Amino acid sequence: MKLNINERIDDLGINNLKIIQNKEYFCFGTDSVLLANFIKSENSNNVIVDLCTGSGVIPVIISAKKKYKKIFGVELQEEMYYLFERNIKLNKLENKIVPIHSDINNISKIQDYVTNKTGSNKIDVIVCNPPYKIIGTGFNTSHTVKTIAKCEINCNLEDVLKVSSKLLKSKGKLYLVHKPDRLTDLLVLGRKYNLEPKEIKFVYPRVNKKPSIVLISYIKNGGNETKILEPLIEYNDDLSFTDEMLKIYGMNSDVKLSDTNKNV
Amino acid sequence: MKLNINERIDDLGINNLKIIQNKEYFCFGTDSVLLANFIKSENSNNVIVDLCTGSGVIPVIISAKKKYKKIFGVELQEEMYYLFERNIKLNKLENKIVPIHSDINNISKIQDYVTNKTGSNKIDVIVCNPPYKIIGTGFNTSHTVKTIAKCEINCNLEDVLKVSSKLLKSKGKLYLVHKPDRLTDLLVLGRKYNLEPKEIKFVYPRVNKKPSIVLISYIKNGGNETKILEPLIEYNDDLSFTDEMLKIYGMNSDVKLSDTNKNV
Repeated sequence: MKLNINERIDDLGINNLKIIQNKEYFCFGTDSVLLANFIKSENSNNVIVDLCTGSGVIPVIISAKKKYKKIFGVELQEEMYYLFERNIKLNKLENKIVPIHSDINNISKIQDYVTNKTGSNKIDVIVCNPPYKIIGTGFNTSHTVKTIAKCEINCNLEDVLKVSSKLLKSKGKLYLVHKPDRLTDLLVLGRKYNLEPKEIKFVYPRVNKKPSIVLISYIKNGGNETKILEPLIEYNDDLSFTDEMLKIYGMNSDVKLSDTNKNV
Repeated sequence: MKLNINERIDDLGINNLKIIQNKEYFCFGTDSVLLANFIKSENSNNVIVDLCTGSGVIPVIISAKKKYKKIFGVELQEEMYYLFERNIKLNKLENKIVPIHSDINNISKIQDYVTNKTGSNKIDVIVCNPPYKIIGTGFNTSHTVKTIAKCEINCNLEDVLKVSSKLLKSKGKLYLVHKPDRLTDLLVLGRKYNLEPKEIKFVYPRVNKKPSIVLISYIKNGGNETKILEPLIEYNDDLSFTDEMLKIYGMNSDVKLSDTNKNV
């Protein structure tokens, strides 16, 4: 496939899957890969929706590693949506992944797509790697493709939880990745929208560091007990990857981690 | 000091401090020691209140390791309160620690004690290692001293947060220790009573295990950003204590850990 200016192709290290990215926009990081691996989907009838899908890395990984009936990816920004469509074609996933060019808050549009492609509006699993940053003082007012992907400009955390609660079937699951400093918001807003936090995993760059990432699963209308899972440590003391990270990326992975935002 | 039947004296490994416990009641564990160490109190004018103090291990450790003006301990059960009074005398802390024999929900009684001993009802820091277990099906209906100390019979998590919020000055701090599976309740109830979760530390028995303990600090009327701290790992792979645990207990500590409830 022909690459445009500023574009590159990354090998995901899984079944020869590849992702075109544009380094001027937002490039996926460890968080997306960890989130895709965190998802449990063991039923081949599951309908999965990835909100804020960007260039589609999460649907592409899910297509290779999880069971499902159909995967939908929702992306608002035209530039990112264009990459997403090309990534579906590049990996020959047209029968598995359906791109939706939409604001996540346009619930009826998402439901129409799901009903049209699956014969029902039932959604079993939602995944989302949302924009992390709260808009505050000192925020760069230029709304570039990158800042819209990274900051809560068009979609904030409360939108993600409200929309997910409306879209999911009862007992359906939501999987999120976020910054640990938003933990209280993540749990309080979850309960507000009947999404009970069920499993939480903290990702620590090293064993003696603060966590850089939190992974959370919620169950719509679930009972109230939260399980904190084993920690995921990214790096050994000698800065080599831990066995768990090597397993997630595939031992012989060529995936480029150089662009990820880690505070090792 | 004379010991009664079923009593024993444990050396805390700090400044020669000792604690009388009764093995038929509730004996303090790692959680109390970690909580006492987790507290930040760097002002010698601070008034500190320990709710559900039991035999008083937390006030006794605070008296040696933190700055304060006066420490109050609140205990409901007569048997535990008797141990608490004797532990104050045993360690000659009568001028530092004030025992209050009361239900924590009796707010005016606690405030009266504080006002009487400090000249004001201002409380800067509250500490609490509350009963952990929710009363559910299969609960042992015999309300012994031990089950009242361990189960939410006379005081539940919501009571602790409600009472702490009423007692604390604005910007005052609450420090709690609890089971990680109550994390959502800990954060949601905190925000409900204007106690914003500020710092959270998970204690993992080993690096590849689920956490067994969570330590949380709240600030009354604090801003909403939660910091997840470095993990505390209790044991090395060879089951020896990690350096951080040795530091908390004192390298040459004789403190007995055999009675603590750890799932290594």
